[in-house]
Amino acid sequence: MKIIRNPKQMTAWSKEQAVAGGTIGFVPTMGFFHEGHLALMRRAGELADQVVVSLFVNPTQFGPQEDLAAYPRDFDHDQELAVGVGVDVIFAPESEDMYPTGFNTTVTVGEELTDRLCGAVRPGHFAGVATVVSKLFNIVRPDLAVFGEKDFQQLAVIRRMTEDLNLGVEIIGHPIIREQDGLAMSSRNTYLQEAEREAALSLSRALAMARTMTADGERHVESLTAALQKFILSFAGTELDYISFVDQFTLQPVVEVNKDTVLALAVQINGRVRLIDNGFVAGDEK
Amino acid sequence: MKIIRNPKQMTAWSKEQAVAGGTIGFVPTMGFFHEGHLALMRRAGELADQVVVSLFVNPTQFGPQEDLAAYPRDFDHDQELAVGVGVDVIFAPESEDMYPTGFNTTVTVGEELTDRLCGAVRPGHFAGVATVVSKLFNIVRPDLAVFGEKDFQQLAVIRRMTEDLNLGVEIIGHPIIREQDGLAMSSRNTYLQEAEREAALSLSRALAMARTMTADGERHVESLTAALQKFILSFAGTELDYISFVDQFTLQPVVEVNKDTVLALAVQINGRVRLIDNGFVAGDEK
Repeated sequence: MKIIRNPKQMTAWSKEQAVAGGTIGFVPTMGFFHEGHLALMRRAGELADQVVVSLFVNPTQFGPQEDLAAYPRDFDHDQELAVGVGVDVIFAPESEDMYPTGFNTTVTVGEELTDRLCGAVRPGHFAGVATVVSKLFNIVRPDLAVFGEKDFQQLAVIRRMTEDLNLGVEIIGHPIIREQDGLAMSSRNTYLQEAEREAALSLSRALAMARTMTADGERHVESLTAALQKFILSFAGTELDYISFVDQFTLQPVVEVNKDTVLALAVQINGRVRLIDNGFVAGDEK
Repeated sequence: MKIIRNPKQMTAWSKEQAVAGGTIGFVPTMGFFHEGHLALMRRAGELADQVVVSLFVNPTQFGPQEDLAAYPRDFDHDQELAVGVGVDVIFAPESEDMYPTGFNTTVTVGEELTDRLCGAVRPGHFAGVATVVSKLFNIVRPDLAVFGEKDFQQLAVIRRMTEDLNLGVEIIGHPIIREQDGLAMSSRNTYLQEAEREAALSLSRALAMARTMTADGERHVESLTAALQKFILSFAGTELDYISFVDQFTLQPVVEVNKDTVLALAVQINGRVRLIDNGFVAGDEK
Protein backbone atom coordinates (compact mmCIF):
# COMPACT_ATOMS: atom_id res chain seq x y z
CA MET A 1 0.00 0.00 0.00
CA LYS A 2 1.27 3.44 -0.97
CA ILE A 3 0.96 6.50 1.23
CA ILE A 4 0.78 9.73 -0.73
CA ARG A 5 0.77 13.12 0.97
CA ASN A 6 1.23 15.53 -1.94
CA PRO A 7 -1.88 16.38 -4.03
CA LYS A 8 0.09 16.65 -7.29
CA GLN A 9 1.68 13.23 -6.70
CA MET A 10 -1.76 11.81 -6.04
CA THR A 11 -3.07 13.20 -9.35
CA ALA A 12 0.00 11.88 -11.19
CA TRP A 13 -0.64 8.40 -9.78
CA SER A 14 -4.29 8.57 -10.82
CA LYS A 15 -3.43 9.70 -14.34
CA GLU A 16 -1.13 6.67 -14.70
CA GLN A 17 -4.04 4.39 -13.78
CA ALA A 18 -6.28 6.10 -16.35
CA VAL A 19 -3.71 5.67 -19.11
CA ALA A 20 -3.29 2.01 -18.14
CA GLY A 21 -7.06 1.57 -18.33
CA GLY A 22 -7.62 0.84 -14.64
CA THR A 23 -10.60 2.18 -12.69
CA ILE A 24 -10.32 3.91 -9.32
CA GLY A 25 -12.74 3.51 -6.42
CA PHE A 26 -12.45 6.22 -3.78
CA VAL A 27 -13.43 6.41 -0.11
CA PRO A 28 -12.99 9.87 1.47
CA THR A 29 -12.61 9.64 5.26
CA MET A 30 -11.47 11.57 8.32
CA GLY A 31 -9.66 8.47 9.58
CA PHE A 32 -10.00 6.53 12.87
CA PHE A 33 -11.40 3.65 10.93
CA HIS A 34 -14.13 1.37 12.22
CA GLU A 35 -16.07 -1.43 10.57
CA GLY A 36 -18.24 1.18 8.79
CA HIS A 37 -15.23 2.62 6.94
CA LEU A 38 -13.85 -0.82 6.16
CA ALA A 39 -17.16 -1.83 4.60
CA LEU A 40 -16.93 1.18 2.25
CA MET A 41 -13.36 0.22 1.29
CA ARG A 42 -14.34 -3.39 0.58
CA ARG A 43 -17.23 -2.19 -1.56
CA ALA A 44 -14.90 0.13 -3.52
CA GLY A 45 -12.60 -2.87 -4.06
CA GLU A 46 -15.46 -4.93 -5.47
CA LEU A 47 -16.39 -2.15 -7.91
CA ALA A 48 -13.00 -0.83 -9.11
CA ASP A 49 -9.50 -2.02 -9.97
CA GLN A 50 -7.74 0.26 -7.48
CA VAL A 51 -8.91 1.62 -4.12
CA VAL A 52 -7.82 5.03 -2.90
CA VAL A 53 -8.77 6.14 0.63
CA SER A 54 -8.26 9.74 1.66
CA LEU A 55 -7.56 10.46 5.30
CA PHE A 56 -7.99 14.14 6.07
CA VAL A 57 -9.61 15.73 9.10
CA ASN A 58 -11.02 18.67 7.16
CA PRO A 59 -10.95 21.82 9.32
CA THR A 60 -13.46 23.76 7.19
CA GLN A 61 -16.35 21.45 8.01
CA PHE A 62 -15.99 21.95 11.78
CA GLY A 63 -17.61 24.94 13.48
CA PRO A 64 -15.62 27.07 15.95
CA GLN A 65 -17.33 25.34 18.92
CA GLU A 66 -16.91 21.85 17.48
CA ASP A 67 -14.49 18.99 18.12
CA LEU A 68 -11.77 19.56 15.46
CA ALA A 69 -8.87 19.39 17.94
CA ALA A 70 -10.39 16.48 19.88
CA TYR A 71 -11.41 14.48 16.81
CA PRO A 72 -9.86 11.01 17.30
CA ARG A 73 -6.79 10.15 15.19
CA ASP A 74 -4.66 6.97 14.93
CA PHE A 75 -2.78 6.89 11.64
CA ASP A 76 -0.73 3.75 12.39
CA HIS A 77 -3.75 1.66 13.24
CA ASP A 78 -5.66 3.11 10.24
CA GLN A 79 -2.83 1.96 7.96
CA GLU A 80 -2.98 -1.58 9.30
CA LEU A 81 -6.74 -1.74 8.86
CA ALA A 82 -6.53 -0.34 5.31
CA VAL A 83 -3.88 -2.90 4.32
CA GLY A 84 -6.16 -5.59 5.72
CA VAL A 85 -8.98 -4.74 3.32
CA GLY A 86 -6.74 -4.34 0.26
CA VAL A 87 -6.53 -0.56 -0.06
CA ASP A 88 -3.96 0.47 -2.71
CA VAL A 89 -3.31 4.09 -1.73
CA ILE A 90 -3.90 6.18 1.37
CA PHE A 91 -3.98 9.85 0.39
CA ALA A 92 -3.25 11.84 3.55
CA PRO A 93 -2.55 15.47 2.67
CA GLU A 94 -1.43 18.19 5.06
CA SER A 95 -3.88 20.99 5.78
CA GLU A 96 -1.43 23.57 4.33
CA ASP A 97 -1.42 21.69 1.02
CA MET A 98 -5.21 21.57 0.86
CA TYR A 99 -5.72 25.18 1.97
CA PRO A 100 -2.58 27.18 1.14
CA THR A 101 -2.31 30.90 1.92
CA GLY A 102 -4.72 32.85 -0.27
CA PHE A 103 -7.21 30.00 -0.58
CA ASN A 104 -10.52 31.69 -1.33
CA THR A 105 -13.03 29.43 -3.13
CA THR A 106 -16.19 27.80 -1.80
CA VAL A 107 -18.56 25.26 -3.31
CA THR A 108 -22.09 25.57 -1.93
CA VAL A 109 -25.18 23.53 -2.53
CA GLY A 110 -28.53 25.36 -2.31
CA GLU A 111 -30.10 25.89 1.07
CA GLU A 112 -33.00 23.54 0.30
CA LEU A 113 -30.49 20.73 0.91
CA THR A 114 -28.14 22.35 3.40
CA ASP A 115 -30.00 24.66 5.80
CA ARG A 116 -32.08 21.99 7.52
CA LEU A 117 -31.29 18.90 9.67
CA CYS A 118 -27.56 18.97 10.54
CA GLY A 119 -27.12 22.18 8.51
CA ALA A 120 -29.45 24.07 10.86
CA VAL A 121 -27.16 23.48 13.87
CA ARG A 122 -23.87 23.35 11.90
CA PRO A 123 -23.78 26.49 9.72
CA GLY A 124 -21.12 26.28 7.02
CA HIS A 125 -20.64 22.56 7.60
CA PHE A 126 -21.95 21.45 4.20
CA ALA A 127 -20.06 24.16 2.32
CA GLY A 128 -16.93 22.77 3.99
CA VAL A 129 -17.91 19.23 2.96
CA ALA A 130 -18.85 20.16 -0.65
CA THR A 131 -15.65 22.16 -1.13
CA VAL A 132 -13.30 19.51 0.22
CA VAL A 133 -15.02 16.65 -1.62
CA SER A 134 -14.86 18.54 -4.93
CA LYS A 135 -11.14 19.16 -4.28
CA LEU A 136 -10.56 15.50 -3.40
CA PHE A 137 -12.45 14.33 -6.50
CA ASN A 138 -10.31 16.62 -8.67
CA ILE A 139 -7.09 15.42 -7.04
CA VAL A 140 -7.89 11.69 -6.95
CA ARG A 141 -9.97 11.57 -10.18
CA PRO A 142 -11.89 8.44 -9.25
CA ASP A 143 -14.42 6.62 -11.39
CA LEU A 144 -16.63 6.03 -8.37
CA ALA A 145 -16.75 7.00 -4.71
CA VAL A 146 -18.41 5.17 -1.82
CA PHE A 147 -20.07 7.07 1.05
CA GLY A 148 -21.88 5.77 4.12
CA GLU A 149 -25.61 6.36 4.36
CA LYS A 150 -25.19 7.27 8.02
CA ASP A 151 -24.29 10.79 6.85
CA PHE A 152 -27.46 10.82 4.86
CA GLN A 153 -27.70 14.56 4.28
CA GLN A 154 -24.01 14.67 3.28
CA LEU A 155 -24.69 11.96 0.71
CA ALA A 156 -27.59 13.99 -0.78
CA VAL A 157 -25.41 17.12 -0.92
CA ILE A 158 -22.53 15.26 -2.59
CA ARG A 159 -24.80 13.61 -5.16
CA ARG A 160 -26.21 17.03 -6.07
CA MET A 161 -22.80 18.72 -6.30
CA THR A 162 -21.24 15.87 -8.29
CA GLU A 163 -23.98 16.03 -10.89
CA ASP A 164 -24.14 19.84 -10.98
CA LEU A 165 -20.39 20.37 -11.41
CA ASN A 166 -20.06 17.50 -13.94
CA LEU A 167 -17.45 15.82 -11.75
CA GLY A 168 -17.96 12.53 -13.58
CA VAL A 169 -17.78 10.39 -10.43
CA GLU A 170 -20.37 7.71 -9.73
CA ILE A 171 -21.63 8.11 -6.16
CA ILE A 172 -22.39 4.88 -4.29
CA GLY A 173 -24.28 4.93 -0.98
CA HIS A 174 -23.51 2.13 1.48
CA PRO A 175 -25.96 1.01 4.20
CA ILE A 176 -25.23 1.92 7.82
CA ILE A 177 -23.03 -0.56 9.68
CA ARG A 178 -24.12 -1.10 13.29
CA GLU A 179 -22.71 -2.50 16.49
CA GLN A 180 -24.34 -5.69 17.77
CA ASP A 181 -26.57 -3.64 20.07
CA GLY A 182 -27.78 -1.47 17.14
CA LEU A 183 -25.65 1.67 17.65
CA ALA A 184 -24.64 3.11 14.25
CA MET A 185 -20.85 2.98 13.93
CA SER A 186 -19.14 6.36 14.21
CA SER A 187 -15.69 7.61 15.08
CA ARG A 188 -17.43 9.84 17.63
CA ASN A 189 -18.71 6.77 19.52
CA THR A 190 -15.30 6.72 21.25
CA TYR A 191 -16.41 9.86 23.08
CA LEU A 192 -19.15 7.87 24.85
CA GLN A 193 -18.58 6.80 28.43
CA GLU A 194 -19.81 3.38 29.52
CA ALA A 195 -22.83 4.86 31.29
CA GLU A 196 -23.80 6.85 28.18
CA ARG A 197 -24.10 3.82 25.96
CA GLU A 198 -27.71 3.20 26.93
CA ALA A 199 -28.67 6.78 26.02
CA ALA A 200 -26.86 6.38 22.67
CA LEU A 201 -29.08 3.41 21.88
CA SER A 202 -32.11 5.70 21.98
CA LEU A 203 -31.49 6.56 18.29
CA SER A 204 -31.54 3.07 16.78
CA ARG A 205 -34.38 2.06 19.10
CA ALA A 206 -36.40 5.10 18.07
CA LEU A 207 -35.92 4.07 14.42
CA ALA A 208 -37.20 0.59 15.25
CA MET A 209 -40.13 2.08 17.14
CA ALA A 210 -41.03 4.33 14.19
CA ARG A 211 -40.99 1.31 11.87
CA THR A 212 -43.27 -0.65 14.17
CA MET A 213 -45.70 2.24 14.52
CA THR A 214 -45.72 2.78 10.75
CA ALA A 215 -46.25 -0.92 10.09
CA ASP A 216 -49.17 -0.77 12.54
CA GLY A 217 -50.75 1.95 10.40
CA GLU A 218 -49.60 5.25 11.92
CA ARG A 219 -48.53 7.50 9.03
CA HIS A 220 -48.94 10.97 10.52
CA VAL A 221 -45.57 12.61 11.06
CA GLU A 222 -46.93 14.79 13.86
CA SER A 223 -48.11 11.79 15.91
CA LEU A 224 -44.96 9.79 15.16
CA THR A 225 -42.72 12.70 16.14
CA ALA A 226 -44.51 13.24 19.45
CA ALA A 227 -44.15 9.56 20.36
CA LEU A 228 -40.46 9.44 19.34
CA GLN A 229 -39.63 12.61 21.22
CA LYS A 230 -41.14 11.24 24.41
CA PHE A 231 -39.30 7.95 23.87
CA ILE A 232 -35.87 9.46 23.23
CA LEU A 233 -36.13 11.91 26.14
CA SER A 234 -36.98 9.01 28.46
CA PHE A 235 -33.29 7.99 28.23
CA ALA A 236 -31.11 9.75 30.85
CA GLY A 237 -28.94 12.57 29.49
CA THR A 238 -30.52 12.85 26.04
CA GLU A 239 -31.35 16.15 24.38
CA LEU A 240 -32.89 16.42 20.91
CA ASP A 241 -31.28 18.25 18.01
CA TYR A 242 -33.98 17.07 15.62
CA ILE A 243 -36.44 14.35 14.68
CA SER A 244 -37.18 14.82 10.97
CA PHE A 245 -39.20 12.89 8.47
CA VAL A 246 -37.96 13.95 5.02
CA ASP A 247 -38.00 12.88 1.40
CA GLN A 248 -34.86 10.84 0.66
CA PHE A 249 -33.95 12.91 -2.44
CA THR A 250 -35.12 16.48 -1.77
CA LEU A 251 -34.73 16.40 2.05
CA GLN A 252 -38.02 18.28 2.22
CA PRO A 253 -40.13 17.54 5.32
CA VAL A 254 -43.18 15.38 4.75
CA VAL A 255 -46.54 15.32 6.57
CA GLU A 256 -47.38 11.68 5.87
CA VAL A 257 -44.85 8.86 5.80
CA ASN A 258 -44.36 6.96 2.53
CA LYS A 259 -41.76 4.56 1.10
CA ASP A 260 -39.37 7.41 0.19
CA THR A 261 -39.49 8.91 3.67
CA VAL A 262 -36.33 8.87 5.76
CA LEU A 263 -36.44 9.44 9.49
CA ALA A 264 -33.33 11.41 10.47
CA LEU A 265 -32.33 11.81 14.11
CA ALA A 266 -29.72 13.87 15.92
CA VAL A 267 -29.34 13.55 19.68
CA GLN A 268 -26.93 15.15 22.14
CA ILE A 269 -25.75 12.91 24.96
CA ASN A 270 -25.02 14.86 28.16
CA GLY A 271 -24.49 17.98 26.03
CA ARG A 272 -21.15 16.52 25.01
CA VAL A 273 -21.49 13.91 22.27
CA ARG A 274 -23.67 14.49 19.21
CA LEU A 275 -24.91 11.35 17.47
CA ILE A 276 -26.92 10.94 14.27
CA ASP A 277 -28.80 8.04 12.76
CA ASN A 278 -31.38 7.57 10.02
CA GLY A 279 -33.37 5.04 8.09
CA PHE A 280 -36.42 4.43 5.97
CA VAL A 281 -39.53 3.96 8.07
CA ALA A 282 -42.01 2.43 5.64
CA GLY A 283 -41.58 -0.10 2.86
CA ASP A 284 -38.23 -1.80 2.41
CA GLU A 285 -35.85 -1.23 5.27
CA LYS A 286 -32.53 0.40 4.58
CA MET B 1 -13.93 20.02 -37.03
CA LYS B 2 -16.37 18.21 -34.74
CA ILE B 3 -19.39 19.87 -33.15
CA ILE B 4 -20.38 18.29 -29.85
CA ARG B 5 -23.51 19.35 -27.96
CA ASN B 6 -23.79 16.71 -25.26
CA PRO B 7 -21.58 17.12 -22.14
CA LYS B 8 -21.09 13.36 -21.69
CA GLN B 9 -20.00 12.98 -25.33
CA MET B 10 -17.57 15.84 -24.83
CA THR B 11 -16.03 14.12 -21.81
CA ALA B 12 -15.84 10.81 -23.67
CA TRP B 13 -13.94 12.51 -26.52
CA SER B 14 -11.54 14.11 -24.05
CA LYS B 15 -10.90 10.82 -22.26
CA GLU B 16 -9.95 9.27 -25.61
CA GLN B 17 -7.36 12.00 -26.14
CA ALA B 18 -5.94 11.45 -22.65
CA VAL B 19 -5.57 7.71 -23.24
CA ALA B 20 -3.90 8.41 -26.61
CA GLY B 21 -1.48 10.76 -24.85
CA GLY B 22 -2.65 13.95 -26.59
CA THR B 23 -2.96 17.28 -24.77
CA ILE B 24 -6.04 19.51 -24.96
CA GLY B 25 -5.99 23.30 -25.13
CA PHE B 26 -9.32 24.91 -24.29
CA VAL B 27 -10.87 28.30 -25.07
CA PRO B 28 -14.20 28.97 -23.33
CA THR B 29 -16.27 31.58 -25.21
CA MET B 30 -19.75 33.02 -25.56
CA GLY B 31 -19.35 32.98 -29.36
CA PHE B 32 -19.65 35.80 -31.93
CA PHE B 33 -15.95 35.46 -32.60
CA HIS B 34 -13.67 38.37 -33.36
CA GLU B 35 -9.91 38.57 -33.78
CA GLY B 36 -9.52 38.49 -29.98
CA HIS B 37 -11.12 35.06 -29.75
CA LEU B 38 -9.18 33.77 -32.76
CA ALA B 39 -5.91 34.83 -31.15
CA LEU B 40 -6.78 32.72 -28.09
CA MET B 41 -7.56 29.72 -30.33
CA ARG B 42 -4.28 30.08 -32.23
CA ARG B 43 -2.39 30.29 -28.95
CA ALA B 44 -4.14 27.13 -27.68
CA GLY B 45 -3.12 25.42 -30.92
CA GLU B 46 0.53 26.35 -30.39
CA LEU B 47 0.49 24.95 -26.86
CA ALA B 48 -1.58 21.76 -27.18
CA ASP B 49 -2.24 18.88 -29.59
CA GLN B 50 -5.99 19.46 -29.80
CA VAL B 51 -8.03 22.65 -29.48
CA VAL B 52 -11.52 22.62 -27.97
CA VAL B 53 -13.58 25.82 -28.04
CA SER B 54 -16.78 26.02 -26.01
CA LEU B 55 -19.54 28.25 -27.28
CA PHE B 56 -22.14 28.88 -24.60
CA VAL B 57 -23.90 32.11 -23.74
CA ASN B 58 -24.07 31.37 -20.03
CA PRO B 59 -27.30 32.75 -18.55
CA THR B 60 -26.11 32.66 -14.92
CA GLN B 61 -23.46 35.32 -15.47
CA PHE B 62 -25.97 37.88 -16.76
CA GLY B 63 -27.95 40.06 -14.34
CA PRO B 64 -31.73 40.47 -14.74
CA GLN B 65 -31.24 43.93 -16.33
CA GLU B 66 -28.40 42.79 -18.60
CA ASP B 67 -28.17 41.85 -22.27
CA LEU B 68 -28.61 38.05 -22.23
CA ALA B 69 -31.38 38.04 -24.87
CA ALA B 70 -29.65 40.67 -27.03
CA TYR B 71 -26.16 39.16 -26.76
CA PRO B 72 -24.97 38.74 -30.39
CA ARG B 73 -24.96 35.21 -31.82
CA ASP B 74 -23.87 33.81 -35.22
CA PHE B 75 -23.11 30.13 -34.99
CA ASP B 76 -22.54 29.55 -38.73
CA HIS B 77 -19.99 32.32 -39.03
CA ASP B 78 -18.34 31.23 -35.76
CA GLN B 79 -17.92 27.71 -37.21
CA GLU B 80 -16.19 29.06 -40.32
CA LEU B 81 -13.84 31.20 -38.29
CA ALA B 82 -13.00 28.32 -35.94
CA VAL B 83 -12.22 26.00 -38.87
CA GLY B 84 -9.95 28.71 -40.24
CA VAL B 85 -7.72 28.71 -37.15
CA GLY B 86 -7.59 24.92 -36.83
CA VAL B 87 -10.03 24.28 -33.98
CA ASP B 88 -10.69 20.54 -33.53
CA VAL B 89 -13.92 20.61 -31.54
CA ILE B 90 -16.62 23.18 -30.86
CA PHE B 91 -18.48 22.25 -27.69
CA ALA B 92 -21.84 24.02 -27.83
CA PRO B 93 -24.14 22.65 -25.13
CA GLU B 94 -27.80 23.53 -24.62
CA SER B 95 -28.70 25.50 -21.51
CA GLU B 96 -30.94 22.63 -20.28
CA ASP B 97 -27.97 20.27 -20.39
CA MET B 98 -25.77 22.64 -18.41
CA TYR B 99 -28.46 23.56 -15.88
CA PRO B 100 -30.99 20.74 -15.71
CA THR B 101 -34.00 20.91 -13.37
CA GLY B 102 -32.84 20.72 -9.77
CA PHE B 103 -29.47 22.30 -10.46
CA ASN B 104 -28.40 23.80 -7.14
CA THR B 105 -24.62 24.25 -6.80
CA THR B 106 -22.54 27.42 -6.88
CA VAL B 107 -18.80 28.02 -6.94
CA THR B 108 -17.84 31.35 -5.39
CA VAL B 109 -14.51 33.07 -5.06
CA GLY B 110 -14.04 35.29 -2.00
CA GLU B 111 -15.31 38.84 -2.10
CA GLU B 112 -11.81 40.32 -2.04
CA LEU B 113 -11.64 39.30 -5.71
CA THR B 114 -15.29 39.53 -6.71
CA ASP B 115 -17.08 42.40 -4.94
CA ARG B 116 -15.09 45.25 -6.55
CA LEU B 117 -14.62 46.53 -10.12
CA CYS B 118 -17.13 44.73 -12.38
CA GLY B 119 -18.40 42.71 -9.41
CA ALA B 120 -19.65 45.88 -7.70
CA VAL B 121 -22.06 46.67 -10.53
CA ARG B 122 -22.71 43.08 -11.61
CA PRO B 123 -23.67 41.17 -8.41
CA GLY B 124 -23.55 37.40 -8.90
CA HIS B 125 -21.66 37.75 -12.19
CA PHE B 126 -18.44 36.12 -10.99
CA ALA B 127 -20.25 33.30 -9.19
CA GLY B 128 -21.89 32.61 -12.57
CA VAL B 129 -18.50 32.69 -14.29
CA ALA B 130 -16.70 30.55 -11.69
CA THR B 131 -19.48 27.95 -11.67
CA VAL B 132 -19.73 27.60 -15.45
CA VAL B 133 -15.95 27.53 -15.95
CA SER B 134 -15.52 24.83 -13.32
CA LYS B 135 -18.27 22.84 -15.06
CA LEU B 136 -16.65 23.35 -18.47
CA PHE B 137 -13.23 22.32 -17.13
CA ASN B 138 -14.74 19.14 -15.67
CA ILE B 139 -16.55 18.33 -18.91
CA VAL B 140 -13.71 19.17 -21.34
CA ARG B 141 -10.81 18.12 -19.04
CA PRO B 142 -8.22 20.30 -20.77
CA ASP B 143 -4.51 20.47 -19.93
CA LEU B 144 -4.51 24.22 -20.42
CA ALA B 145 -7.04 26.98 -21.05
CA VAL B 146 -6.46 30.37 -22.70
CA PHE B 147 -8.33 33.49 -21.53
CA GLY B 148 -8.12 37.05 -22.75
CA GLU B 149 -6.62 39.64 -20.43
CA LYS B 150 -9.38 42.06 -21.41
CA ASP B 151 -11.56 40.36 -18.81
CA PHE B 152 -8.83 40.95 -16.31
CA GLN B 153 -10.85 40.40 -13.13
CA GLN B 154 -12.39 37.25 -14.64
CA LEU B 155 -8.89 35.92 -15.27
CA ALA B 156 -7.87 36.58 -11.63
CA VAL B 157 -11.03 34.84 -10.37
CA ILE B 158 -10.48 31.82 -12.64
CA ARG B 159 -6.82 31.48 -11.67
CA ARG B 160 -7.82 31.51 -7.98
CA MET B 161 -10.64 28.99 -8.45
CA THR B 162 -8.56 26.65 -10.62
CA GLU B 163 -5.81 26.49 -8.02
CA ASP B 164 -8.18 26.27 -5.04
CA LEU B 165 -10.32 23.45 -6.45
CA ASN B 166 -7.28 21.53 -7.79
CA LEU B 167 -8.74 21.57 -11.29
CA GLY B 168 -5.33 20.74 -12.76
CA VAL B 169 -5.68 23.14 -15.70
CA GLU B 170 -2.89 25.53 -16.64
CA ILE B 171 -4.38 29.01 -17.07
CA ILE B 172 -2.82 31.14 -19.84
CA GLY B 173 -3.57 34.86 -20.10
CA HIS B 174 -3.45 36.37 -23.59
CA PRO B 175 -2.83 40.11 -24.20
CA ILE B 176 -5.74 42.28 -25.34
CA ILE B 177 -6.28 42.42 -29.10
CA ARG B 178 -7.22 45.89 -30.34
CA GLU B 179 -8.75 47.45 -33.43
CA GLN B 180 -6.42 49.68 -35.45
CA ASP B 181 -7.77 52.74 -33.62
CA GLY B 182 -7.02 51.20 -30.22
CA LEU B 183 -10.49 49.97 -29.19
CA ALA B 184 -10.21 46.68 -27.31
CA MET B 185 -12.00 43.96 -29.27
CA SER B 186 -15.29 42.83 -27.75
CA SER B 187 -18.44 41.12 -28.99
CA ARG B 188 -20.29 44.03 -27.40
CA ASN B 189 -18.58 46.51 -29.78
CA THR B 190 -21.29 45.59 -32.29
CA TYR B 191 -23.73 47.49 -30.08
CA LEU B 192 -21.84 50.74 -30.84
CA GLN B 193 -23.34 53.13 -33.35
CA GLU B 194 -20.98 54.98 -35.69
CA ALA B 195 -21.27 58.20 -33.70
CA GLU B 196 -20.42 56.36 -30.45
CA ARG B 197 -17.10 55.08 -31.69
CA GLU B 198 -15.25 58.21 -30.61
CA ALA B 199 -16.61 57.94 -27.07
CA ALA B 200 -15.58 54.25 -27.01
CA LEU B 201 -12.01 55.28 -27.73
CA SER B 202 -11.93 57.21 -24.44
CA LEU B 203 -10.91 53.98 -22.69
CA SER B 204 -7.78 53.09 -24.66
CA ARG B 205 -6.80 56.76 -24.83
CA ALA B 206 -7.17 57.10 -21.07
CA LEU B 207 -4.85 54.11 -20.66
CA ALA B 208 -2.28 55.79 -22.92
CA MET B 209 -2.66 59.03 -20.99
CA ALA B 210 -2.11 57.26 -17.65
CA ARG B 211 1.08 55.65 -19.02
CA THR B 212 2.38 59.01 -20.18
CA MET B 213 1.62 60.67 -16.85
CA THR B 214 3.24 57.81 -14.96
CA ALA B 215 6.33 57.90 -17.19
CA ASP B 216 6.51 61.62 -16.49
CA GLY B 217 6.70 60.89 -12.76
CA GLU B 218 3.10 61.04 -11.51
CA ARG B 219 2.54 58.03 -9.25
CA HIS B 220 -0.31 59.20 -7.02
CA VAL B 221 -3.48 57.32 -7.80
CA GLU B 222 -5.65 60.17 -6.55
CA SER B 223 -4.13 62.67 -8.99
CA LEU B 224 -4.11 60.18 -11.86
CA THR B 225 -7.75 59.27 -11.25
CA ALA B 226 -8.87 62.91 -11.21
CA ALA B 227 -7.13 63.60 -14.52
CA LEU B 228 -8.50 60.43 -16.16
CA GLN B 229 -12.02 61.11 -14.96
CA LYS B 230 -11.97 64.57 -16.47
CA PHE B 231 -10.52 63.18 -19.70
CA ILE B 232 -13.05 60.34 -20.12
CA LEU B 233 -16.03 62.56 -19.30
CA SER B 234 -14.87 65.06 -21.95
CA PHE B 235 -16.09 62.54 -24.58
CA ALA B 236 -19.77 63.00 -25.46
CA GLY B 237 -22.10 60.35 -23.94
CA THR B 238 -19.62 58.76 -21.54
CA GLU B 239 -20.49 57.82 -17.98
CA LEU B 240 -18.02 56.20 -15.59
CA ASP B 241 -18.58 52.85 -13.90
CA TYR B 242 -15.08 52.90 -12.42
CA ILE B 243 -11.48 53.96 -12.77
CA SER B 244 -9.44 51.61 -10.55
CA PHE B 245 -5.74 51.17 -9.94
CA VAL B 246 -5.32 47.71 -8.44
CA ASP B 247 -2.69 45.06 -7.80
CA GLN B 248 -2.67 42.59 -10.69
CA PHE B 249 -2.88 39.53 -8.40
CA THR B 250 -4.95 40.56 -5.37
CA LEU B 251 -7.11 43.20 -7.16
CA GLN B 252 -6.68 45.35 -4.04
CA PRO B 253 -6.66 49.12 -4.73
CA VAL B 254 -3.29 50.82 -4.49
CA VAL B 255 -2.39 54.38 -3.47
CA GLU B 256 0.83 54.64 -5.49
CA VAL B 257 1.34 53.10 -8.92
CA ASN B 258 4.06 50.45 -9.31
CA LYS B 259 4.98 47.83 -11.93
CA ASP B 260 2.29 45.40 -10.70
CA THR B 261 -0.45 48.00 -10.89
CA VAL B 262 -3.23 47.52 -13.42
CA LEU B 263 -5.51 50.37 -14.40
CA ALA B 264 -9.00 48.96 -14.98
CA LEU B 265 -11.71 51.02 -16.63
CA ALA B 266 -15.44 50.55 -17.20
CA VAL B 267 -17.40 53.15 -19.12
CA GLN B 268 -21.04 53.33 -20.17
CA ILE B 269 -21.68 54.83 -23.60
CA ASN B 270 -25.03 56.63 -23.79
CA GLY B 271 -26.25 54.47 -20.88
CA ARG B 272 -26.55 51.62 -23.35
CA VAL B 273 -23.23 49.96 -24.05
CA ARG B 274 -20.85 49.03 -21.24
CA LEU B 275 -17.19 48.72 -22.25
CA ILE B 276 -14.15 47.67 -20.23
CA ASP B 277 -10.43 47.94 -20.80
CA ASN B 278 -7.29 47.59 -18.71
CA GLY B 279 -3.52 47.62 -18.80
CA PHE B 280 -0.36 48.02 -16.79
CA VAL B 281 0.51 51.67 -16.32
CA ALA B 282 4.14 51.55 -15.19
CA GLY B 283 7.06 49.34 -16.20
CA ASP B 284 6.62 46.93 -19.10
CA GLU B 285 3.49 47.50 -21.04
CA LYS B 286 1.01 44.71 -21.36
